Amino acid sequence: MNTYERIDRDLSDRDFTVVGKSVKRSDTLEKVTGTARYAGDVALPGMLHAKMKRSNIAHARIRSIDTSKALALKGVKAVLTHEDVPRVLHAGSPHPRSASVTKDQYILDDRVRYWGEGVAAVAAVSEEIAERAVALIEVEYEPLPGLFTIEAASVPGAPPIHENGLDRNQVLPPVFVTRGDVDRGFAEADLILEREYDLGRPTPAYMEPNVCVSQWDGNGKLTMWTSTQSAFMVRGTLAEVLGVPLNKVRVIVDHMGGGFGAKQDLFQNEFLCALLARQTGRPVKMEFSRKETFLGGRSRHPGKIWLKQGFTKDGRIVAREARVTFNSGAYGSHGPGVTNVGTAALTSLYRCENVRLEGRCIYTNSPIAGAFRGYGVVQTYYALDLMMDEAAEKLGFDPAEFKLMNAVREGDIAPSGHPIVGHGLGDCIRRVMEETNWHELRRREKPETVKRRGIGIGCEMHGSSAYPGIKEQGNAIVKMNEDGTVTLITGTAGLGTGAHTALSQIVAEELGVPFEAVSVVQGDTDIVPWDIGAFASHTTYLGGRAAQLAAADVRRQVLEHAAPMLKAEPENLAIRDGFVVVTNGSNRSIRLSEAVGPQRGMPAVQLVGVGTYMPTKSYSFAAHFAEVEVDTETGEVAVLQVVPVHEIGRVIHPIAAAGQIEGGIQQGIGHTLSEDYVIDLTDGRSLNPSFVDYKMPLSMDMPSIRTIILETAPDPGGPYGAKGVGEDPIIAIGPAIANAIYDAIGVRFHHYPITPEQVLNALKSKANETRQ
Amino acid sequence: MNTYERIDRDLSDRDFTVVGKSVKRSDTLEKVTGTARYAGDVALPGMLHAKMKRSNIAHARIRSIDTSKALALKGVKAVLTHEDVPRVLHAGSPHPRSASVTKDQYILDDRVRYWGEGVAAVAAVSEEIAERAVALIEVEYEPLPGLFTIEAASVPGAPPIHENGLDRNQVLPPVFVTRGDVDRGFAEADLILEREYDLGRPTPAYMEPNVCVSQWDGNGKLTMWTSTQSAFMVRGTLAEVLGVPLNKVRVIVDHMGGGFGAKQDLFQNEFLCALLARQTGRPVKMEFSRKETFLGGRSRHPGKIWLKQGFTKDGRIVAREARVTFNSGAYGSHGPGVTNVGTAALTSLYRCENVRLEGRCIYTNSPIAGAFRGYGVVQTYYALDLMMDEAAEKLGFDPAEFKLMNAVREGDIAPSGHPIVGHGLGDCIRRVMEETNWHELRRREKPETVKRRGIGIGCEMHGSSAYPGIKEQGNAIVKMNEDGTVTLITGTAGLGTGAHTALSQIVAEELGVPFEAVSVVQGDTDIVPWDIGAFASHTTYLGGRAAQLAAADVRRQVLEHAAPMLKAEPENLAIRDGFVVVTNGSNRSIRLSEAVGPQRGMPAVQLVGVGTYMPTKSYSFAAHFAEVEVDTETGEVAVLQVVPVHEIGRVIHPIAAAGQIEGGIQQGIGHTLSEDYVIDLTDGRSLNPSFVDYKMPLSMDMPSIRTIILETAPDPGGPYGAKGVGEDPIIAIGPAIANAIYDAIGVRFHHYPITPEQVLNALKSKANETRQ
Repeated sequence: MNTYERIDRDLSDRDFTVVGKSVKRSDTLEKVTGTARYAGDVALPGMLHAKMKRSNIAHARIRSIDTSKALALKGVKAVLTHEDVPRVLHAGSPHPRSASVTKDQYILDDRVRYWGEGVAAVAAVSEEIAERAVALIEVEYEPLPGLFTIEAASVPGAPPIHENGLDRNQVLPPVFVTRGDVDRGFAEADLILEREYDLGRPTPAYMEPNVCVSQWDGNGKLTMWTSTQSAFMVRGTLAEVLGVPLNKVRVIVDHMGGGFGAKQDLFQNEFLCALLARQTGRPVKMEFSRKETFLGGRSRHPGKIWLKQGFTKDGRIVAREARVTFNSGAYGSHGPGVTNVGTAALTSLYRCENVRLEGRCIYTNSPIAGAFRGYGVVQTYYALDLMMDEAAEKLGFDPAEFKLMNAVREGDIAPSGHPIVGHGLGDCIRRVMEETNWHELRRREKPETVKRRGIGIGCEMHGSSAYPGIKEQGNAIVKMNEDGTVTLITGTAGLGTGAHTALSQIVAEELGVPFEAVSVVQGDTDIVPWDIGAFASHTTYLGGRAAQLAAADVRRQVLEHAAPMLKAEPENLAIRDGFVVVTNGSNRSIRLSEAVGPQRGMPAVQLVGVGTYMPTKSYSFAAHFAEVEVDTETGEVAVLQVVPVHEIGRVIHPIAAAGQIEGGIQQGIGHTLSEDYVIDLTDGRSLNPSFVDYKMPLSMDMPSIRTIILETAPDPGGPYGAKGVGEDPIIAIGPAIANAIYDAIGVRFHHYPITPEQVLNALKSKANETRQ
Repeated sequence: MNTYERIDRDLSDRDFTVVGKSVKRSDTLEKVTGTARYAGDVALPGMLHAKMKRSNIAHARIRSIDTSKALALKGVKAVLTHEDVPRVLHAGSPHPRSASVTKDQYILDDRVRYWGEGVAAVAAVSEEIAERAVALIEVEYEPLPGLFTIEAASVPGAPPIHENGLDRNQVLPPVFVTRGDVDRGFAEADLILEREYDLGRPTPAYMEPNVCVSQWDGNGKLTMWTSTQSAFMVRGTLAEVLGVPLNKVRVIVDHMGGGFGAKQDLFQNEFLCALLARQTGRPVKMEFSRKETFLGGRSRHPGKIWLKQGFTKDGRIVAREARVTFNSGAYGSHGPGVTNVGTAALTSLYRCENVRLEGRCIYTNSPIAGAFRGYGVVQTYYALDLMMDEAAEKLGFDPAEFKLMNAVREGDIAPSGHPIVGHGLGDCIRRVMEETNWHELRRREKPETVKRRGIGIGCEMHGSSAYPGIKEQGNAIVKMNEDGTVTLITGTAGLGTGAHTALSQIVAEELGVPFEAVSVVQGDTDIVPWDIGAFASHTTYLGGRAAQLAAADVRRQVLEHAAPMLKAEPENLAIRDGFVVVTNGSNRSIRLSEAVGPQRGMPAVQLVGVGTYMPTKSYSFAAHFAEVEVDTETGEVAVLQVVPVHEIGRVIHPIAAAGQIEGGIQQGIGHTLSEDYVIDLTDGRSLNPSFVDYKMPLSMDMPSIRTIILETAPDPGGPYGAKGVGEDPIIAIGPAIANAIYDAIGVRFHHYPITPEQVLNALKSKANETRQ
């Protein structure tokens, strides 16, 4: 059984009544009973069903498309090819930081760049007929050379996959980050390690496939139900590409079955669904199969990381040099952002004054890589932490102590340029060591049995919100009803993580009312105020702070209203447990409902508060302990236990935070040991686009997890000091496992996933080496 | 063909670009194509259908109800009687002015007070099965004496229909209004007239029958789709009676098919539907048949008005005395409000310093009277205007000139206690006379043919919004999108009159953007800010002003934001045609979308404005000219033409205002000539609860209407000076027609409706008198 524990330090003199409590999530019941409405549940009268024709070639020009047989099929209402759709370049992802994404996609192009790319779409009266029509579409291709690897695509003179003015299929000009004098650092080093790390292609594999429903009204307004993390960015992109003003696009997301970053993008389907609905004058639903969710979805960026570090005997890192090369797949998507963030991350975590980093991102004719929990940092910190483990051993340090010695600390400059607040990482490492009896475990005997156990520690840090200088923004409106109950109207998306519960807690805390008194309105761009979307570990941090500000605005109005009734100044009033109370000496109080409620049958005044928050950036930290058992006969690695210690500032909902951590660990175990979406390197064909062949850890594969949450370094910008926890847990688990595998069998892997076959081969090589 | 004309006086130095234009209503297309969703269109998975068992006796105690046969019917899921529902007294109408309504209803009682009252409810898998189950419910009654008329119910010692501490079945203590010295006035009079007017029972006969759908979620929250004019008051009443907080009730009204005041009430169905849904755990729909809409609906108050006035030879009114007695039917509903407003109205319209008025409202065992367009004033001004016509003749004045001489004018005190602004009534009367060549028409020969023509004029005034001292409130939120398009979030209900189009015009005008740039969100209590509801002719006045204030709040933010970009002070900026322009000399400008739009891909800031308005009261005026043709052989009265002249301050949407006027005239012709919902005076049974037997004028019965709208007395509190027009047109048409009938055939009727049978009988009596 998993457990969690929260160390509640004295962050302020304030007693919290709702924040920090694991209140019952308000969406639980509708989710477990199946009444929660997801985009796929939307069924409209007269609705058509759409399907996409996908390429069966990885790189080609389209010579011709014959849709006549499809159109002749009874029940088919419309077919669209590249000849029928607006030719507007878009970013695929509507991310507001243009520097993070790449404008290189058309809705449909006269060229395909990866196996499975959409080339046409059909709307018909049933999904079955649409599928039959798709099969009747005949596409004649003129093949182009397929460039399936970074190596093939980035050789000088490689044929360009996109015409963006850069050579060697670069998505963006190389990213350079330098600090100090790296050459001098290496000159001072007693130990220099140089390794290349090779990272696979995990996918977010969210439960809810991509799906959308489009409907146009008679006034030329599009309503789009879709599964997205950023309804407003979808609105903006649809409006731009379809050529309509923003008030003519309404995006609705009632509930979401996961996104993990990938659902910041648009996936051809939204545009095609909208265009088919406009052409047919009927609502249209387009729902991906699981296979299509693989084909048309987004993966984490595969890549190669060449890392070289110099260390002194006394355990300092004196030089760090890295070349990060990500494989973007057929389109750029978040390649620029991931390359920037992933590369810059190597300036931090473990302190080093002399740093020289290069980041590259390369187009290939393979599935599209995009935003995915960890956003480049999963890859680079995997490399960094593994090398730390190796260096510790070579220098004769305990790896945990060695990481603690070098841990980033208060006042250090974070990758974003902000100074670090507090000593979160050190706190986490120390606590892991205490909690696991680290030193005692390390001294444990290691018998040469078939199944061998090992322990490891991995570390990470990750920022909430975007980079400084970016006007990232969260907004909230809070209405107070005449009985003192409250409605929070928030732009914050709910990916399924309980974000709206956390925001309700914040509003309840701020207004001195019970959690149950707060209702949430969300998920409809016509209604809620603009919000950047749910990603970058910033939902609670950003949306929560906006909600807090809106609630504080209402509180101010309540107190102003109550002041004459209580014959007191507003500044001497507070709301507590549903009462407005005088705080300076007197014990006078009135019910909140009296203060704001009916007077002669009418509300005193409708109280509406507005909150806008533009954050800077805060960093959360974690150290994960993992114990593994390696079966030396089968090569299988079982993770036996994980002790994740996270420092996240003020925790709003402990169980939800622990849930995020457990989920991140599950995904991290996946990409470290089994998950890899692979293509045939001869023709680019996807080889395992299904849950049968793409192996994720199931609940039975999961270890016991003992989560510990620290609140030692609250962020002054977050609500009550809260920071993010969304991405963090997926980052540290990978190196913890890889380091534990080394501890168990003495083999250092420099890649993921580490498969049983590779473990067996490595054990065989090691045995051969030993024998030689 | 109907026409309308607008006299646009110089109300301000401002040029309007959207206000005052008849823009295309944004809801037209979805309404005419049938895609607009009304409560009756809501269909939810697993939804049950509910029906009510109604009493077949007018007054009785319920001895027992046997529901066993109904419950045994396959497909029946629940049956509720008075034994199964919360016993909480409620007002029937959730009107916020407790002085306007009467708390005398239970959801279901152990007593029935009128024929057709609901005594039980069934939920079943189909409407047909629910109806069969209703027929299987056996109710044993213990009859009580039926009191069907005011006379029967108000005799001393009459058995009480309600136990409210008042004798003679009074709904409220008598209303007394006095001013000046009436006795001295009568002593000074040269002519005293004393008449009793008898007023029938018209019903609003809205197109959309009462209907609601209830659904409870797993967190104990009720969502109710219903056809109501006041979603927030329904929310409040449901929460109170069902015992849940306000944030656990969500009321949704997407579109409405008319209400005319009556749909301020709750009609048993909302409670029963909610309770059946809670009990069965399934959504439940309850839809009234047309017959039930008569039985369970609300009529205008029938009543008797005894009116006595004293006049001087020179045409002044020196004394006015009246006793107004309204028939409330079985429950109080808006009886207090209607009695107060209808009685107090007699202090005004035609000037008189000495006034003594009494108003009474009496329970009877007849259908419930409630709020209905005109709210008591239709009845009392019918009496007042008819007597003015009669007095004019007796004193030798032209009736129009006589009304003009006595018309209320600037500075006079209105019934609400407010001073009148401008000379609206006089302006209307003068304009009618000019427009119709009144004097020439009056001199026309009147041959004694079978069909005889006559002309008449009727006048009225009516207030927008409630009485002073009442914190009536409208609220709006305006969001500006990053491209400068706008969303208005309004609590204002849309009865079908185009209110949201008018509000959008106001927002567009205030923000200097085109009408099409404004979208409206409305009709969902979870989302929109509190609003009192759509009644009292105040939607544009109150909700429009709130929208204007919210838009002005956004405008201020836009200008503050644009000021540094334009190197100007905000006070020297304006928004015009989608540009922010410098107004003091320079011709610098930037697009609105630049001022508020993305900077590095992000909105500068989400602009949200909030507007709250608590109005006082404004008065609108009208004079209607009617020409009728009376068939002396059949008694039929045909209205040949109507020229309504209305003074309504600033007109926001001329065609919509003209539509209100034409609709009011159609309803007014109805109650004046044919509409009367009648009961059998022996047992209280409804005799014509159908559109076959209840006779409304159809489109082919309608005269040509030439509408003229004056803007001579704008109200300082209304948006751009706008006042109400909702109720006014139904008030003046009645006396105009009755006066025209007199002009045609020389018979003065003192009642409505004036039926062909009565016309024939009156002509016969007159002939007999002449012969004698």
